Amino acid sequence: MTLIARLKEITPHVLTGADALPYGRDWVGKYQTAPLAVLRPGTTGEVSAILALCSETGTAVVPMGGNTGLTGATAAEGLVILSLERMNTIREIRPDARIAIVEAGVILQDLHEAAAQHDLSYPMTFGAKGSARIGGTLATNAGGSNVLRYGNTRDLCLGLEVVLADGRVLDLMSELHKDNSGYDLRDLIIGSEGTLGVITAAVLKLVPTPSAYATAMVTVPGLSGALRLLNALQTRTGGMVEAFEYMPRDYMARLKQFRSDLIPPLGHDQDHTIFLEVASTVPRDCAADESGQVPLVSHLEETLGELFEEGLVLDAALAQSEAQRALMWQIREAAAEISVATKPIVINDLCLPIDQVEAFLARAEAKLRPLDPGFGTCVVSHLGDGNVHYTIYPSTEALCDPLMQAVEDIVEEMRGSFSAEHGIGLSKLPSMRRRKDEVALTMMRGVKAAFDPKRILNPGKTLP
Amino acid sequence: MTLIARLKEITPHVLTGADALPYGRDWVGKYQTAPLAVLRPGTTGEVSAILALCSETGTAVVPMGGNTGLTGATAAEGLVILSLERMNTIREIRPDARIAIVEAGVILQDLHEAAAQHDLSYPMTFGAKGSARIGGTLATNAGGSNVLRYGNTRDLCLGLEVVLADGRVLDLMSELHKDNSGYDLRDLIIGSEGTLGVITAAVLKLVPTPSAYATAMVTVPGLSGALRLLNALQTRTGGMVEAFEYMPRDYMARLKQFRSDLIPPLGHDQDHTIFLEVASTVPRDCAADESGQVPLVSHLEETLGELFEEGLVLDAALAQSEAQRALMWQIREAAAEISVATKPIVINDLCLPIDQVEAFLARAEAKLRPLDPGFGTCVVSHLGDGNVHYTIYPSTEALCDPLMQAVEDIVEEMRGSFSAEHGIGLSKLPSMRRRKDEVALTMMRGVKAAFDPKRILNPGKTLP
Repeated sequence: MTLIARLKEITPHVLTGADALPYGRDWVGKYQTAPLAVLRPGTTGEVSAILALCSETGTAVVPMGGNTGLTGATAAEGLVILSLERMNTIREIRPDARIAIVEAGVILQDLHEAAAQHDLSYPMTFGAKGSARIGGTLATNAGGSNVLRYGNTRDLCLGLEVVLADGRVLDLMSELHKDNSGYDLRDLIIGSEGTLGVITAAVLKLVPTPSAYATAMVTVPGLSGALRLLNALQTRTGGMVEAFEYMPRDYMARLKQFRSDLIPPLGHDQDHTIFLEVASTVPRDCAADESGQVPLVSHLEETLGELFEEGLVLDAALAQSEAQRALMWQIREAAAEISVATKPIVINDLCLPIDQVEAFLARAEAKLRPLDPGFGTCVVSHLGDGNVHYTIYPSTEALCDPLMQAVEDIVEEMRGSFSAEHGIGLSKLPSMRRRKDEVALTMMRGVKAAFDPKRILNPGKTLP
Repeated sequence: MTLIARLKEITPHVLTGADALPYGRDWVGKYQTAPLAVLRPGTTGEVSAILALCSETGTAVVPMGGNTGLTGATAAEGLVILSLERMNTIREIRPDARIAIVEAGVILQDLHEAAAQHDLSYPMTFGAKGSARIGGTLATNAGGSNVLRYGNTRDLCLGLEVVLADGRVLDLMSELHKDNSGYDLRDLIIGSEGTLGVITAAVLKLVPTPSAYATAMVTVPGLSGALRLLNALQTRTGGMVEAFEYMPRDYMARLKQFRSDLIPPLGHDQDHTIFLEVASTVPRDCAADESGQVPLVSHLEETLGELFEEGLVLDAALAQSEAQRALMWQIREAAAEISVATKPIVINDLCLPIDQVEAFLARAEAKLRPLDPGFGTCVVSHLGDGNVHYTIYPSTEALCDPLMQAVEDIVEEMRGSFSAEHGIGLSKLPSMRRRKDEVALTMMRGVKAAFDPKRILNPGKTLP
């Protein structure tokens, strides 16, 4: 009996040939692979049986959620894809405990909607929320727009169910907020991109949904002032800052060039624009007064006024309506569109210590300019996290790699990371090989060998 | 040349014989061991050289911080203790980045004081803060009084420096809030009790220091109501609840018996008393008005009033002065004293899903009473974390183990943990052997073998 026939005995939901091809293409169209087959099991037991068989036969397996990753972590030329898409049940939401228990194939947006029925939120969110699945967000430790307040995916997970390479089930489905009984296997699995085990279910934290938002565009004299603004806002609001996004002059210039319909409230001609949003669940912050003004907005206005007096803020425009708020978000979210409108291009997802972003930008300009006097940039940053999307437009294709390596040099010297929120997959393997601490790589290989001695789980990904 | 002589060539700070004995005794006096020697290196380089030599010679090493642990994790009969106490430099505090960079031997309280000079806090705190050292708090993933708001030690750590068993230095000294470059070795080391590596330095998060506190004793109709009270308070304050502690009738009875000087504001004769504290950094919450009233206190008063209307609160006493606040804290902190005043005793540090604490208490009473009709209890709980200190007083010493195992049975059935915040060390090894998922234990042993193949790091601890 062939391998495929044996797999079909475990689950009839097996796609091959042309039916499998869509699973072999990644979201950005960079990786186009032809999988041997796509397995779509419906239960943890089936996942276990599949992995036991693949382990026995030495068959490589590529686990897949919503396939919305940006690093080619699900490329599967000639390999078996294990899709969790049919395991999409929200098993339980317990509002008093503020937890959701879900299968790995649940779509992020479906969880958002289910939580909303209890006036709760699962705060992890990003552009691909309509397709991304919980298992994938855990396997990549996904970031997104709300990390500043609520943390990365890692911070939102209490428990996991994992099927190991040999088919054994590792039951870490804890609902506990404290558990010091041995090594932290949960966090080892989170972010391991399907190379240590296949996540089949999770216990996730929910938070109360904000009742009011206060949103503003602010200009500041420089980035060190911006950080002091962020800290002041956190202190003065009790940690309610949900977004704190930085758009320098080059960003605004590209916005003007490619999305001239989106007019920034303080104009395009600003060195340092911050987009920020504060959100509250506190009733006295949220109930509009007779004039329709929400106290949270007055509070932000007052705080920005004080910071203006201190010289931390040059000018500010508060959103006075949902339409104005939406415009501000559109200006920030245009990044995906306006940043890729020029070729050649080098895309970066960097992280720096949060007080080193300004120094990084200066050093990058100084180092790259001699290499390519004509290079351009489009910079946008989740400044509150130190996460900088530093997109470069070299003068020629041949300059892409030298400029990329020059950026990596600076990031390494400044003890930053070449991968903030997207992971490694395939596309960041060269950076991982060149830049990651050698001792750390050795220990990661030791962990990999302990979890997957036959190297059948997502081979060739994550670890060079 | 003897081993000791060779070690003295690395660092002259070596204690032996009677000088070493104090290091062999644990804080609670349960473990009294005679170490072969105590090494007190002053640099990471010396730690590295020590471990390289110990690895070469197969010498077991017991890492030690402030030696304030509760599970015998530093017991060292005939072994070499590696004390980090001389590596006690706070290398840097960067207020804008809200981080502290410290050596492992820094005493927790010293870090508190250094952060306070910048109006910041390192929010991890517990009774032994004057002796406990940062390295030990990381090695045990310590809990404490502020976990509800700020998380466990794990949640407060951005980066680590670790010397591995063979002397190599694993440099994870990241200051980054986002870093998805490979497996999460940091969280693997945190909580591993010195069995995977020796922590020599860390990057820790700081938070703004609250400017005002509102503190209350509250009686509630039952624990499910208490949880709804907690959730309502979190929503209405925007997550400012720092303490939410449960003291049932048996606790109050023991308080009356052993600390009759401490009179609870709502009396001893209450089924369910909650002690809670809310803390704010928001200026408009904190500035006292002309009558001396702090708005945060009025706000809590108002919120409790509304919850009283909903039936979630039966009665409440707000602290109206620092003296009243101190009394409330003393009533809660008397636990350590009043709970150990009876023998025989079984001490438990359990964790349950936060909405299952009431069910656990009922099941424990029902299961233990037939085994020992005369047993007593003293229960106190960090209810917001689901952490229950369930102290049992069996009628006879012989009943200790049966009652302990009965509690473990219930905890296992309810998917709780037999070790919430104290770790495993030596004293919880039997529970670990009996109760931990076998697959998890196997994978932990695999990790241990990868990190410490010669098994020289804290042998016989953590993993059975």
